[in-house]
Amino acid sequence: MRRVRDLLRSAVLRGAYPGGQLPGEPELMAAHGVTRATVREALALLRTEGLVERRQGVGTHAVAEAVLAPLAEAHGAADPGAGSVFDRRMRPRVLDRSVIPLPAVAADRLGARSGEPCLRLEYVALLGDEPVAMATNYVLFPEAERLRDVPFVSDWYALLAEAGLPLGESEFVLGCLPADAATAGLLGLAEGAPVVTMEQVIRAPGGRPFDLAHIHHRGDRFLLVSRLPRASAPR
Amino acid sequence: MRRVRDLLRSAVLRGAYPGGQLPGEPELMAAHGVTRATVREALALLRTEGLVERRQGVGTHAVAEAVLAPLAEAHGAADPGAGSVFDRRMRPRVLDRSVIPLPAVAADRLGARSGEPCLRLEYVALLGDEPVAMATNYVLFPEAERLRDVPFVSDWYALLAEAGLPLGESEFVLGCLPADAATAGLLGLAEGAPVVTMEQVIRAPGGRPFDLAHIHHRGDRFLLVSRLPRASAPR
Repeated sequence: MRRVRDLLRSAVLRGAYPGGQLPGEPELMAAHGVTRATVREALALLRTEGLVERRQGVGTHAVAEAVLAPLAEAHGAADPGAGSVFDRRMRPRVLDRSVIPLPAVAADRLGARSGEPCLRLEYVALLGDEPVAMATNYVLFPEAERLRDVPFVSDWYALLAEAGLPLGESEFVLGCLPADAATAGLLGLAEGAPVVTMEQVIRAPGGRPFDLAHIHHRGDRFLLVSRLPRASAPR
Repeated sequence: MRRVRDLLRSAVLRGAYPGGQLPGEPELMAAHGVTRATVREALALLRTEGLVERRQGVGTHAVAEAVLAPLAEAHGAADPGAGSVFDRRMRPRVLDRSVIPLPAVAADRLGARSGEPCLRLEYVALLGDEPVAMATNYVLFPEAERLRDVPFVSDWYALLAEAGLPLGESEFVLGCLPADAATAGLLGLAEGAPVVTMEQVIRAPGGRPFDLAHIHHRGDRFLLVSRLPRASAPR
C-alpha cells in the first residue's frame, strides 16, 4: 500500500496528472498489481494529507501541488533562477525583531559568548497568502546592527543583500519534527503534523559564523531539490 | 516556548550536555528569559519526542542523540569519511527483491516505458539494531540484472559498487510525511509520527536515469548535514 501511496503522492505533488484527474481504481489496480482495497487505502491517505479529493462517480482529483525549490537557493548559496520562489516571490510576516541576550545553546553553535547581545528576528515566510516556513534567527553584532532597521520585504537572502552583508558559507542540519501548537497555527497545519526542521548557520566570507536560524517548513508542500554529481572515482 | 524547545532540542540531539545532564529549571528560565511554565512545556515536548527523561529531584537527562550524516554521502556523491554511517556501518533488512512491471509513475520519472520489467528492491536500513530508514528502489535493466543476485551487505552505494555500477548523478527531492502504520512499524515509530521523505533518481555517468527510490527516514534521529559555500558574487 505504502508503495502505491508513494508513487501516486509523487505524481500528485509534481502536478503530473493532466487536469488533476487521477486514473480510475481499475487502472490503478492493474498498473500496480494490487487489490481495490489497497488502492483505496492509498488514496485515503492522500486525502487525509489534503492532496486529493474523491467524489463518487467523478473519481479522484489532485487538489494540491508542491513548490519545488533548489536546495542551493534555500541555502542562499546560489542566485535564484527566474521564477524561483527565492526570486523575491516570498514575503515575511515578522513576529519579532528585538535585541536579546544570546542564549547559551546559540552561543555554543556560533562560537560566541552566552549573554552577549544578539538580534532575534523571527518571521513566517509566505508564498502568496500561504505560510511555507517559519524561522527564528539569532544574529550577532556587528551584523545585527545592519539588520536592525533595514526593510524586510521578501526572503532572508534578499534581506542580507539589502543590508550589505555577504554570505560566505551556509550550513543546514535537516530533520523533521511534529509541529507544536504554535508552529502548527502559524503554518496552517494541525498540531502534530510533520514539519521539516533546518538548523542553519551562516558564516561571513572570512569564516566567522554570525547567524543561527531554526527553520520549520511545510515539507508536505515545499520540497527541496538537491542534485549532486559524483565527486570522484567510484569506490 | 518553541524557541526554547528548538534550542534545547538542538543541544540534546548534538550531545552537547556533558553526561547528558540538562541545566536546571531556574538556570533555563534565566538563560532564556522565560517563565518556569514555559521551560516545563518545552521539556515536556522533548520528553514526548523521547529525547529526554525527567525525574523529580534528579533533573532532566538526555536519553537520545542524533546521527549526523553529510548529505553528499547520503546522495552517494561523496566517498564516506572515516566513521561515517556510510562507511559500511549500516546493514539492510531486505523486504523484497523481485522483478515487476515498472509502474507508470516510476516510468515517468525515469523516462522509461510503463510496464517494462524492473527490479524492485525494498529494504530497511539498520544502524546497529536501530532502523533509520526504509527504501523502495525501482531499477531498470540492464543495471537490474547486475543487482539481482549480488549480496546486499551494507548500504545502497556499497551495493552499486559491488555490482560494478558507477553513479553519475544523484537527485533528492526532500520533504516530510506522517508515517503510515506499516512504515511506522518498520521504523519503530508511532503511526503518524513525522518521517523525512526523499525521492531519489540515480543516473549513470552517461546521464541515463536507471534507479528511482522512495526513501523514508527517521528525521528525529538521523540528521543530514549540507554545507555550501556561496557560489558567486552576492546579488
